[in-house]
Amino acid sequence: MRIIVAGGDGFCGWPTALYLSRLGHEVAIVDSLVRREIDNELHAGSVTPIRTLDERVRAWREVTGRQIAVFRGDLTHYDFLEQVFRTFQPEAFVHFAEQRSAPYSMIDRAHSVYTQRNNVEGTLNVLWAIKDLAPDCHLVKLGTMGEYGTPNIDIEEGYLTVEHNGRSDTFLYPKTPGSFYHLSKVHDTNNIYFACRMWGIRATDLNQGVVYNVHTAETQLDPRLVNRFDYDGIYGTALDRFVAQAAIGHPLTVYGRGGQTRAYINIVDTVRCIQLACEHPAEPGKLRVMNQFTQWFSVNELSRIVSRVAGEMGVPASVEHLPNPRIEREDDHYFHAVNTKLIDLGLEPHLLDDDTLRRLLETARENRDRINPALICTSPTWK
Amino acid sequence: MRIIVAGGDGFCGWPTALYLSRLGHEVAIVDSLVRREIDNELHAGSVTPIRTLDERVRAWREVTGRQIAVFRGDLTHYDFLEQVFRTFQPEAFVHFAEQRSAPYSMIDRAHSVYTQRNNVEGTLNVLWAIKDLAPDCHLVKLGTMGEYGTPNIDIEEGYLTVEHNGRSDTFLYPKTPGSFYHLSKVHDTNNIYFACRMWGIRATDLNQGVVYNVHTAETQLDPRLVNRFDYDGIYGTALDRFVAQAAIGHPLTVYGRGGQTRAYINIVDTVRCIQLACEHPAEPGKLRVMNQFTQWFSVNELSRIVSRVAGEMGVPASVEHLPNPRIEREDDHYFHAVNTKLIDLGLEPHLLDDDTLRRLLETARENRDRINPALICTSPTWK
Repeated sequence: MRIIVAGGDGFCGWPTALYLSRLGHEVAIVDSLVRREIDNELHAGSVTPIRTLDERVRAWREVTGRQIAVFRGDLTHYDFLEQVFRTFQPEAFVHFAEQRSAPYSMIDRAHSVYTQRNNVEGTLNVLWAIKDLAPDCHLVKLGTMGEYGTPNIDIEEGYLTVEHNGRSDTFLYPKTPGSFYHLSKVHDTNNIYFACRMWGIRATDLNQGVVYNVHTAETQLDPRLVNRFDYDGIYGTALDRFVAQAAIGHPLTVYGRGGQTRAYINIVDTVRCIQLACEHPAEPGKLRVMNQFTQWFSVNELSRIVSRVAGEMGVPASVEHLPNPRIEREDDHYFHAVNTKLIDLGLEPHLLDDDTLRRLLETARENRDRINPALICTSPTWK
Repeated sequence: MRIIVAGGDGFCGWPTALYLSRLGHEVAIVDSLVRREIDNELHAGSVTPIRTLDERVRAWREVTGRQIAVFRGDLTHYDFLEQVFRTFQPEAFVHFAEQRSAPYSMIDRAHSVYTQRNNVEGTLNVLWAIKDLAPDCHLVKLGTMGEYGTPNIDIEEGYLTVEHNGRSDTFLYPKTPGSFYHLSKVHDTNNIYFACRMWGIRATDLNQGVVYNVHTAETQLDPRLVNRFDYDGIYGTALDRFVAQAAIGHPLTVYGRGGQTRAYINIVDTVRCIQLACEHPAEPGKLRVMNQFTQWFSVNELSRIVSRVAGEMGVPASVEHLPNPRIEREDDHYFHAVNTKLIDLGLEPHLLDDDTLRRLLETARENRDRINPALICTSPTWK
């Protein structure tokens, strides 16, 4: 299958491109490399020494004999995107190519506008390209569990049937997202749903939980294939950030009371979910929504797990509660979400285990001179 | 009260600015005049000979002695918007300044992207300007009843309480909009709701029905104050378009089967609703949503009413069903929407009556040499 992985130089995109390539799919990475520019903007960088995209792809060819094509450019430039579609003629378009940090989108006005413009216009362009240039191409779009927010009712997979005044209808699940980034994903979802209904496009929206771990079988084949590992206050996500903090002897920083409960997924399962979505395309005209996570945890639970595993490895890690820069529920709020569709397609979840955490902590400790403590608490406040 | 009317040169904005000014409010119009540029792009124009904004405002001063300030510029340029806020220090910001044609947003990729960028970024900038420069300023934002689509359950005013698996929560009413334009308004609503929750902004979202009629008491004070009257396939809306068609002996063009049922409002009530919203501001941190319409009709009903009134005036008007360029329900679908909040605030609806239609038809007949029949069926197809 000819599969484009947009954002294929990024944290989820790179291991996905390798996984699909290893399975024998013909893979092309589309990436503007803007995430590397943002590292420069934030004076931040990956815990792991990631190579340039050219070096990565060359190493992949050396190690496996498989070729991954690269198109460097931006989805918001339609002339570029059109060229990619005409050249590669994709059968699936995996779309990771969005600004994906909530704190980044909250830095100031310019960053909120950038995030929504980049994400919404990029996705609009992809929809038009599919309609006009590859109508049978299946869009596999990454959404986020954060689109739902933390409702007081069960989170279903994308849709909710509502009874009201004796009548009934089914809607996209009503969303209450918590940042300009999460909002951009909701905007995308609404636009994609419309394109499906109007144009008969095939699309899958994968509402992914917080991704933890950085290694997959493929990224571990060669040091030059290593995945990025974010730890800073803007791009680092809860679990990976705690591990990096433990590695340098920094207390694990819990925002507020720590009751924030979220859905999580091991990156090893992320790449498998994308494969399952690609190989079982959505029907034309239907937006299929799947919740892509395997477990949920509160931040307090995660910090306790990391602290325990680190302690067992002789790396004592205390937990520190900081004022919460975000505005969110941090008590023990209700959280219950359905995630059966990907399991029905064949996903066998890799649940959080000590081995994964130990391997991750080893990676962080090997690279601890690359971790700048000044970047740990850089999140802007939501207020 | 110091009130900005953004989009104050437009079809709803101009009569609103006059109405608020006549009531003694201090009014400033903010407008980029892009709607006039779009007339040039589409080779279209108003049935009525509207004057330049400078002439309009000068005439208003001559006729009433009242001054309306004008800031010419674009909400997507934040430096401009910042200047406006610092200079005028608004207490209410009435936001009509969006690309408001569904067909225009469906012309092609570029028009869909333009519409969403213009509307979403303009509104984002207004939210940041209120937060940073005028935190007590009340945002009065025009949404549309079209955000809801045509659900099979009652349309409430903005929110819906959902019972699910024995638990309950209240959400923004789930929306299924029918064009990239309507989607842009849903994106706005989600962004504004977020800004209210995070920043404690005061905001009112007015989900307005299709506006008909063009005249208000104020626009009729002097010929130079006349409001615009759109009839073309892109910007003309159902009822006004039918009247213009009748005026030149063109059959009234109903798309498809004509069962499409929508909410409507007389422009005389539009301006009153804006006044009511401004003079009764929303509470800080709450997004107040009000459905701004007074009646609903199917397109078939409207065409029959216009045909009858025109016939009584000696202007025979037949009805012609054309292939529907849109993808929408055109059978006798369910439509029931709540609209009590504005009535509770004091709105006394001006329901559709023959006098209004007669006066509108007279206006169209006086200007019938300005109506180009080639522009009547210019809607792009949704497909």
